[in-house]
Amino acid sequence: MKTALQEIITPLLSLKELSSVAERQRWAERYREIRAFSEELCKPLHAEDCVIQSMPDASPAKWHLAHTSWFFETFILRPGLANYREADPHSSYLFNSYYNAVGPMHCRARRGMISRPTLEETYRYREQVDAAMTSFFERATEDRWRELKPVVVLGLNHEQQHQELFLTDIKHMLAQNPLCPVYAHASGEEPSAVTPLRWFGFDEGIYSIGHEGEDFAFDNEGPRHRVFLDKFELASRLVTNGEYIEFMKDGGYERPEFWLSLGWSMVHDQKWRAPLYWEQRDGDWFNFTLSGLRRVNPSEPVCHVSYFEADAYARWAGARLPTEAEWEVASANLPLAGNFVEEKHFHPRPLIPGRSGELAQMFGDVWEWTRSSYAPYPRYEPAEGAIGEYNGKFMCNQYVLRGGSCATSQTHIRRTYRNFFAPDKRWQFMGIRLTKAAL
Amino acid sequence: MKTALQEIITPLLSLKELSSVAERQRWAERYREIRAFSEELCKPLHAEDCVIQSMPDASPAKWHLAHTSWFFETFILRPGLANYREADPHSSYLFNSYYNAVGPMHCRARRGMISRPTLEETYRYREQVDAAMTSFFERATEDRWRELKPVVVLGLNHEQQHQELFLTDIKHMLAQNPLCPVYAHASGEEPSAVTPLRWFGFDEGIYSIGHEGEDFAFDNEGPRHRVFLDKFELASRLVTNGEYIEFMKDGGYERPEFWLSLGWSMVHDQKWRAPLYWEQRDGDWFNFTLSGLRRVNPSEPVCHVSYFEADAYARWAGARLPTEAEWEVASANLPLAGNFVEEKHFHPRPLIPGRSGELAQMFGDVWEWTRSSYAPYPRYEPAEGAIGEYNGKFMCNQYVLRGGSCATSQTHIRRTYRNFFAPDKRWQFMGIRLTKAAL
Amino acid sequence: MKTALQEIITPLLSLKELSSVAERQRWAERYREIRAFSEELCKPLHAEDCVIQSMPDASPAKWHLAHTSWFFETFILRPGLANYREADPHSSYLFNSYYNAVGPMHCRARRGMISRPTLEETYRYREQVDAAMTSFFERATEDRWRELKPVVVLGLNHEQQHQELFLTDIKHMLAQNPLCPVYAHASGEEPSAVTPLRWFGFDEGIYSIGHEGEDFAFDNEGPRHRVFLDKFELASRLVTNGEYIEFMKDGGYERPEFWLSLGWSMVHDQKWRAPLYWEQRDGDWFNFTLSGLRRVNPSEPVCHVSYFEADAYARWAGARLPTEAEWEVASANLPLAGNFVEEKHFHPRPLIPGRSGELAQMFGDVWEWTRSSYAPYPRYEPAEGAIGEYNGKFMCNQYVLRGGSCATSQTHIRRTYRNFFAPDKRWQFMGIRLTKAAL
Amino acid sequence: MKTALQEIITPLLSLKELSSVAERQRWAERYREIRAFSEELCKPLHAEDCVIQSMPDASPAKWHLAHTSWFFETFILRPGLANYREADPHSSYLFNSYYNAVGPMHCRARRGMISRPTLEETYRYREQVDAAMTSFFERATEDRWRELKPVVVLGLNHEQQHQELFLTDIKHMLAQNPLCPVYAHASGEEPSAVTPLRWFGFDEGIYSIGHEGEDFAFDNEGPRHRVFLDKFELASRLVTNGEYIEFMKDGGYERPEFWLSLGWSMVHDQKWRAPLYWEQRDGDWFNFTLSGLRRVNPSEPVCHVSYFEADAYARWAGARLPTEAEWEVASANLPLAGNFVEEKHFHPRPLIPGRSGELAQMFGDVWEWTRSSYAPYPRYEPAEGAIGEYNGKFMCNQYVLRGGSCATSQTHIRRTYRNFFAPDKRWQFMGIRLTKAAL
Repeated sequence: MKTALQEIITPLLSLKELSSVAERQRWAERYREIRAFSEELCKPLHAEDCVIQSMPDASPAKWHLAHTSWFFETFILRPGLANYREADPHSSYLFNSYYNAVGPMHCRARRGMISRPTLEETYRYREQVDAAMTSFFERATEDRWRELKPVVVLGLNHEQQHQELFLTDIKHMLAQNPLCPVYAHASGEEPSAVTPLRWFGFDEGIYSIGHEGEDFAFDNEGPRHRVFLDKFELASRLVTNGEYIEFMKDGGYERPEFWLSLGWSMVHDQKWRAPLYWEQRDGDWFNFTLSGLRRVNPSEPVCHVSYFEADAYARWAGARLPTEAEWEVASANLPLAGNFVEEKHFHPRPLIPGRSGELAQMFGDVWEWTRSSYAPYPRYEPAEGAIGEYNGKFMCNQYVLRGGSCATSQTHIRRTYRNFFAPDKRWQFMGIRLTKAAL
Repeated sequence: MKTALQEIITPLLSLKELSSVAERQRWAERYREIRAFSEELCKPLHAEDCVIQSMPDASPAKWHLAHTSWFFETFILRPGLANYREADPHSSYLFNSYYNAVGPMHCRARRGMISRPTLEETYRYREQVDAAMTSFFERATEDRWRELKPVVVLGLNHEQQHQELFLTDIKHMLAQNPLCPVYAHASGEEPSAVTPLRWFGFDEGIYSIGHEGEDFAFDNEGPRHRVFLDKFELASRLVTNGEYIEFMKDGGYERPEFWLSLGWSMVHDQKWRAPLYWEQRDGDWFNFTLSGLRRVNPSEPVCHVSYFEADAYARWAGARLPTEAEWEVASANLPLAGNFVEEKHFHPRPLIPGRSGELAQMFGDVWEWTRSSYAPYPRYEPAEGAIGEYNGKFMCNQYVLRGGSCATSQTHIRRTYRNFFAPDKRWQFMGIRLTKAAL
Repeated sequence: MKTALQEIITPLLSLKELSSVAERQRWAERYREIRAFSEELCKPLHAEDCVIQSMPDASPAKWHLAHTSWFFETFILRPGLANYREADPHSSYLFNSYYNAVGPMHCRARRGMISRPTLEETYRYREQVDAAMTSFFERATEDRWRELKPVVVLGLNHEQQHQELFLTDIKHMLAQNPLCPVYAHASGEEPSAVTPLRWFGFDEGIYSIGHEGEDFAFDNEGPRHRVFLDKFELASRLVTNGEYIEFMKDGGYERPEFWLSLGWSMVHDQKWRAPLYWEQRDGDWFNFTLSGLRRVNPSEPVCHVSYFEADAYARWAGARLPTEAEWEVASANLPLAGNFVEEKHFHPRPLIPGRSGELAQMFGDVWEWTRSSYAPYPRYEPAEGAIGEYNGKFMCNQYVLRGGSCATSQTHIRRTYRNFFAPDKRWQFMGIRLTKAAL
Repeated sequence: MKTALQEIITPLLSLKELSSVAERQRWAERYREIRAFSEELCKPLHAEDCVIQSMPDASPAKWHLAHTSWFFETFILRPGLANYREADPHSSYLFNSYYNAVGPMHCRARRGMISRPTLEETYRYREQVDAAMTSFFERATEDRWRELKPVVVLGLNHEQQHQELFLTDIKHMLAQNPLCPVYAHASGEEPSAVTPLRWFGFDEGIYSIGHEGEDFAFDNEGPRHRVFLDKFELASRLVTNGEYIEFMKDGGYERPEFWLSLGWSMVHDQKWRAPLYWEQRDGDWFNFTLSGLRRVNPSEPVCHVSYFEADAYARWAGARLPTEAEWEVASANLPLAGNFVEEKHFHPRPLIPGRSGELAQMFGDVWEWTRSSYAPYPRYEPAEGAIGEYNGKFMCNQYVLRGGSCATSQTHIRRTYRNFFAPDKRWQFMGIRLTKAAL
């Protein structure tokens, strides 16, 4: 397609326009890659798997596929493509997630009630949107392109976010089934040795955190601003299953002194005794993974813990969780590498021993709970219009998580990236890194 | 198959045995017919339609297909077929409905969380059970056959019951979808004239009601016993949509004086303003049917009303609902004919004018609410073992309905048949026939 | 007062009028007695005890005192007494229980939110109503008296019903308090011997049941009508605590085969392991009574069991509960005597051994669950107007109880009396009498 | 008592000891004053008023009176007074609020189920504790005094907190009553002119906030630490009812764009249309106050708004809420004066015009919502033992409020004082001060 596009457009364009063509081609290519990855993730599933909503927080796989297309249709194609005819007149009702400014929407908790459009029809809807997006990349006027390019980029980041939710929602759905179905078979043996935990110190001072510059970032990552930090120490690696089992054995879930009051209520009301997806059989702990039910590996990072559990563990361990500013400052010079979704491991991995020279596991594996309530940065302003509902309106009763997980795309993450969930949520790949005040 | 069976068995058998072979063949044939009809009902559906449980009262289509097979596997194949190997070791956990005596079971309200086995695998499960049942019909010892024949018959009646639930559950599920999908296109125009309502009188006296004899009946239909009835009059036909709309226009849903106290609470809590599946658009009433959303036909029997609505309507109309004894006495000499599922109309039909010589619409169209609480007949004893859980344990806070509906098999109904639902349920094809005390 | 009334009125009256005067005097006297008994029941309580509503089914003591006065104010004084000025303009909103026809009312479940009027003010309200009622008895025109006399009688029966609820609600409220407060100290030792259970047989036939005649009865007790009964046998006495403990020891609360399906759900959801108010301490069973916490007496009738428990016990015992018709037929020639509230024992009593010639404990002690769903008798018509809301609108999902309890007035009960509660209720004094089909 | 104490002790003491005696006398005096004020607040109430718990967040007045005594009994008398015999062995179960370390406790939501001990018995319990505390002040060994003095001070601050809750809980309880009872008659006319709103600017820089030094403060107020603040502007006064009504008229409660997502859900689920206690009658707004139902005064500070409403109002007004650090920095040099509970006005007051030279209404009137999630300050450590449960365990999903209210004691407040409530709570005296980023 790229060639075809070039053939048609190139002769007609000035130099500045040429760079726009190249840019459009780059984004069209990026669009195809990211959209294709969504479908690749869906391949191991049957139509039946794609319909179920296993809890109000989760969405059916089919809905993720449709909603991400709806996003492009609503925010790019309708305003940006002359004569665009909606693929399905009901899509804007059925596949709107929460954008009040766009109109009424299907109740979130009832997304699993909708058998039609079928999975096949949903793929057709995607194809129609993709075809129209190809037209948009090729034919949008220069003004439109300038205006809507940021929304295209947002839409792609949005789709990557839904790819992560797709995996965590599918995991939750499969976990309801006593047959413990396998999404993807595990790729092999994991190291069992555990690297000793060390502490890395950081000085007090005024630091700048937050996003700045031309590259894409969500609005909640900026503006870049100054914060004052006391000196602190950060753990060299994530907390492991083995360490977490020690906490459990020491009465972690029975002793209120470790817990926030709301957390203690959750322990009781929800009968929490271990991380989500763990179950005990004949005295041994197993956990349900996207590769089926497996014996808990003590050297893997602990995963699927709530903020309450992360906080309780830290208190038990004589430490605390980092603030998001501390985390961001500590991550400043680290490579953006780790166990991301591109690895297709779909589960956190034990740290390979020997890499002790620097902070490890800061990116990938599991999102790291911080003790920072999700709040606007100083002088934060949400974007205008419906897009402005993306982040700001959720800034209440949620906690920030940093670093991405084994279900996150490496091309999606940033040092300044602020993920956020309510403190009782556990179905994302969420884990624990310890911090303490420096002496 | 019949021929093959005869060839093998006939030469070896005495006369008495011969009659058993013929009987087995008849039941094997009946088995195939009824089992095939379940699958025929499923044909218009996609895999996606078969997974969803739209409310705790309903079950996914896939579950109905599996559960009816599980019934034969559990109550016939395991005890009755030597060396029978279960098709799926989890089936007895996943597809048990409520038989405590058989063991633990998957939580009813979570039947919609189970994507696997898929629809295709479920069909394979049915095939395996059917193949084993064929063996059973052919090879069971005479003693086993004698012992288990009643359970085979029960299993077939059980499957017919689930065929009805299959249709009402699918209707409820499709109704959740704003796209109003069509299950089966409607077959044509309906008469619009309404036959005037007349009253048929019955004398006081001691009557016998309930099942007696060799033919199959559920245990709750017997023993046959005597009741004393005052003289009464029964309406010649069902209440129509048009009559019900009069009740609505007269403030039916706003005036507490017509309602039982619990019914009035439901009206408020559930915001009832019309029968289930009705909605008003621009002043006109439409109802969702298995043929999609249609304008309400005033001459059709009103349908999808709760006991509370039936009772309130009757009070408004200066009448009452019949007792089940009155209904059964009145039906004594009527032919077992009507708009049943075999018609594939899947909706009640207006009465064809002119058939005024007798009580009309007593069978088929809609189940008729009676004012009789569902209770054991005198000297009722449930069957031994798990089968005994079929009826007796539900005899509380439910009301009896009589006559079958457009989703019931004609071969399944009897004059003595006692259907029962809680008084707030509306998703079955339920309607109203009036009664009054005779002067 | 009687004398004063006579002095004024007598000289002016004809013979017929004289009999009306005597009748008014009798009813005025009856009014004073019953009203005084309400206040006597309240004496052991502090103001604090009278405010609390310990569950939505119960009402604060203060509310009972006010509501019974509101009844006379609304249905007698306002229509019947010229120039009557309401004691409190808010009373009709606050103290209406459920009469939709009288106007809006305070939400039932929030009766315990109302601290004012205080207990003292409530007594003043009663006094004002009583004074006005005295005027009514003295001065109402003859026509008014004729018209409203039935309502006065209803009002007095209504107050007696609330006296019973007063006691059961107070018991429930005190039971919430870990201090186990005593309402009235127990009067002494009880016999511990248990009279052996015998069976009394009754013939099949057509019987008439229900109220007939001039004496007061609630509308739900009539009309008298014929029923056909099979022969049956009734147990000579109530089931005892000791017998019920045998059921418990035999896994009564752990074995689903004894239970109705709804009952089994309650056992699980509510964690029932014993009758209401029972608790186990060091292996022994204690029960909370209006005389405080006491060791369970095995010879006392078991009490505070739901319909579900009564039904399960009966099934375990190889028997069943009686129908209300059976109970009424069996009670036909028995004296209306027993352990009623006039005894001020406030708890069921063991049967005194030796009285074996007849059915014992049919009246008083505990209300006896029947297997009859609460339904209208043939040709039942509720009264006109608000008074018609008294009974008929509750005829759904409730079961009839017969015979009165230790909290019922002896002057209130009748053989035809139909009490009714939902099958999961336990806070009334409810117990078990067994029946079985006769051979 | 002071004199008696001096007479006994003075001759025996060294100079250092003398200062301890004087100190004990001062605290004994302070103890008497604060304890007496609790009882003074209770005077306008009847026993009936003191029993009711109108929602799980609130407690009965009687419970407040008992719990504050239990605090002294548990944390001072039991450890500190030789041979102390508990006034009531059940008190530690009934009157423990949430101290897991002290043992099991009565369920918070069921505090309104407990009629005994009565109000009079509760006063007797207070007297016994007070008498024992007098002994403690007089006779505790010097070591014990040193050790427990901080707990006495904490206990007095604790009692002052409960005095505030006492008033807000009583207000909530009285508001349930359609009679709108009056707690204290209003003292007179209020000014109706509104002072124009101005903005006070503050520079960027590193500031220190938090408590430091010997005087009492709650553990959550420290340690004092540095924060970096951008320049900002703070509104000269609170938002008024009149301004809030403008927001309402502009569709404040109907336009999602002003609201946090959780707030918008609350608006819908709770049907919020105005602040708590407001109701519209014939087009005019009234609000229920401790002086009864009154027409809303447009010049009064708006009150009983949730964080969600405060935040939405600020967004509508083009401003935001301050952080707690901004608030504390801005309050640095202001006198600790305002409309506190000592005024016995029990309601916020309009600003008296003319006092425009400085920030007004920073203390008293209403607690001011900040946008700061309630979190530990850097290096915060909770106290050892049960007392450590006072603050830290609530640091989740709550927002900080500053400045005290018309129900707070002036002797209780500090610039560093951190009050905190969940963002949906409205029953405290909570209001709004605006902030914005400086240009």
